[in-house]
Amino acid sequence: MPDRREFLWTAAGSSVMDVHAAEFTPSPGEMVLRETEPPNLETPTAALRLPLTPTAQFYVRNHFPTPAIDRRAWRLHVDGAVDRPMSLSADELRQLPRVSRRLTMECAGNGRVFLVPKVRGVNWANGAVGNAEWTGVPLSAVLDRAGVKPSAVEVVLEGADVGTVNDDPKSPGPIAFARSLPLAKARRPEVLLADSMNGEPLTPDHGAPLRAVVGGWYGMASVKWLNRIVVTDRPFQGFWQTLDYSEFTRPHGVPTMGPITAMRVKAVILATHPAIHGVAWAGESSITKVEISTDGGTTWSAATLLSEAKPFEWVHWEFKWSPAPGRYRLIARATDAEGRTQPEKRDPDRRTYQINHLVPVVHLAPGQ
Amino acid sequence: MPDRREFLWTAAGSSVMDVHAAEFTPSPGEMVLRETEPPNLETPTAALRLPLTPTAQFYVRNHFPTPAIDRRAWRLHVDGAVDRPMSLSADELRQLPRVSRRLTMECAGNGRVFLVPKVRGVNWANGAVGNAEWTGVPLSAVLDRAGVKPSAVEVVLEGADVGTVNDDPKSPGPIAFARSLPLAKARRPEVLLADSMNGEPLTPDHGAPLRAVVGGWYGMASVKWLNRIVVTDRPFQGFWQTLDYSEFTRPHGVPTMGPITAMRVKAVILATHPAIHGVAWAGESSITKVEISTDGGTTWSAATLLSEAKPFEWVHWEFKWSPAPGRYRLIARATDAEGRTQPEKRDPDRRTYQINHLVPVVHLAPGQ
Repeated sequence: MPDRREFLWTAAGSSVMDVHAAEFTPSPGEMVLRETEPPNLETPTAALRLPLTPTAQFYVRNHFPTPAIDRRAWRLHVDGAVDRPMSLSADELRQLPRVSRRLTMECAGNGRVFLVPKVRGVNWANGAVGNAEWTGVPLSAVLDRAGVKPSAVEVVLEGADVGTVNDDPKSPGPIAFARSLPLAKARRPEVLLADSMNGEPLTPDHGAPLRAVVGGWYGMASVKWLNRIVVTDRPFQGFWQTLDYSEFTRPHGVPTMGPITAMRVKAVILATHPAIHGVAWAGESSITKVEISTDGGTTWSAATLLSEAKPFEWVHWEFKWSPAPGRYRLIARATDAEGRTQPEKRDPDRRTYQINHLVPVVHLAPGQ
Repeated sequence: MPDRREFLWTAAGSSVMDVHAAEFTPSPGEMVLRETEPPNLETPTAALRLPLTPTAQFYVRNHFPTPAIDRRAWRLHVDGAVDRPMSLSADELRQLPRVSRRLTMECAGNGRVFLVPKVRGVNWANGAVGNAEWTGVPLSAVLDRAGVKPSAVEVVLEGADVGTVNDDPKSPGPIAFARSLPLAKARRPEVLLADSMNGEPLTPDHGAPLRAVVGGWYGMASVKWLNRIVVTDRPFQGFWQTLDYSEFTRPHGVPTMGPITAMRVKAVILATHPAIHGVAWAGESSITKVEISTDGGTTWSAATLLSEAKPFEWVHWEFKWSPAPGRYRLIARATDAEGRTQPEKRDPDRRTYQINHLVPVVHLAPGQ
């Protein structure tokens, strides 16, 4: 009889994930502490096996301390290139038509602990990702109410969290967390101003009283503690889309920087026994296949998707196997509906973000 | 009789400039070594008193080691949004109509040693600035020859110097030094492709066989070892106009990053005895006045400009005084033709560049 215990090592050999069957019933508050001030908390591997991530175990990525906001005094301001600058109270916002959507959100630095050599930034393993049901008002409804001028090109979302980025010698003076969306994305139905998460009001660490949720994009776009929307007539180049959360591409062979946007296709192994089990997501696209290699990438076989694959939401998958005793290098590789597959190697032009290259996991199958 | 020796301290008290009258005849090679690899060399204070900076004493700012280029094999490539992509040899370039212009060039980090607390980057004092006569072909002539398409918005200048920015954890993979100009600036007559400096062929450290010289702008725009011009139909966001050499401005109160461009108005004190003597420049504008305070900024008097002030070129100035024995805090303050005056305080949104706030200098006037 095989041991009930298996070991997963990262490719870098730097961390060991010790997975027990008993851990697959997650208990609230069981989070991996990555940073204390500001709070940066990672979802434990076991909780990633649930279709919907419990709020208490949903990863927390803060750039500054969680601001204290009095919901009664709070207002959402809308200005810039709009016909009717306005501000709305929380109660006024609740009068607008409400929608609920399940959306997966991954931090752009998720998986950073697998980078060798080590890099700066929060060293997430696989758990800076979650899937929740978000409820609120589509951003498009608020934009329509304010009346976007024809000159508008982007929508800047600004949070109430303010500070100086002390660990970055290139940072400017004190700034509020802010991120922009091109107008076309801002108007998409998967972009919400949410006041509720998994059927309950937002908690302070998740952005109460109001946050953006930008379906399909990395989490940095989903600005928490939202208190201002500025419609701009030129592209925004804020700190968190230039110095942070940006990438390089090379049109004409010349490297040029742009903001990180949609989540890239990615599969993560969550357990290796009795079956190989995991989850995969593809940002604005949907997963079409997950393949498994048990020999370090030489041969590949299809895993089974455990539910219908959809855009914006992760899908769990499974690969049944009965390994002979030995040591196995397991790799999961996902492909999306645009035909994009996870790369084998890390591209340094992505800087320390969008970490979706193939990361082998070692499985030791014990003897009888 | 006053001592022939005076002392200039920086505001930070961190460096002492010991100025002798004898030093005002500069000798070749007398440079301040700021970095060895890549070479970063500062012009000594004495040489800044000359109207035209000798090539051997003109500051050198390199980002990677000086590339070895065979002039005979070298070609300038022009591509992107042009009707006629082309490449030109050095001899072919010399067939185009040539112009000579005197242009002042200042490194965007000049004066960084005066910042408290200390910051990363080459810690220049006042000598990362110079004025030279540059000879070559206007960039506009090459653009006209290639035929710029109507969709074009910027011109990217790429050098032969390539490397990985190892001291920046946010850098991409290996890149060549590159910088862009908006098309309107690229077509201005003060933007040259120079093969000569002060009447002699460019030296390797100054960009041989060809460099850009962008009159009025900080030095990072004047790409050395130029070997490629790419006309682009969207704004370029290269490393050296985002992670490096950028600033924040705050339209609508929201900080947004943009490339550093024109040099800001600035006066520098070069000697305090027998007269207070210095130099001032104003980028694309011209100096209209230099004022001196001998009491730390309480009262101000006009200095005399020693030649006609013009755009793109520095002007020396003088303030005659006969101080009673004592300790004086001297400040020079310049104003340009747009009415812009040097600020009293440093603005952190300029990051560690464009250092033109007022820096007092201490003068000790000895007794008889």
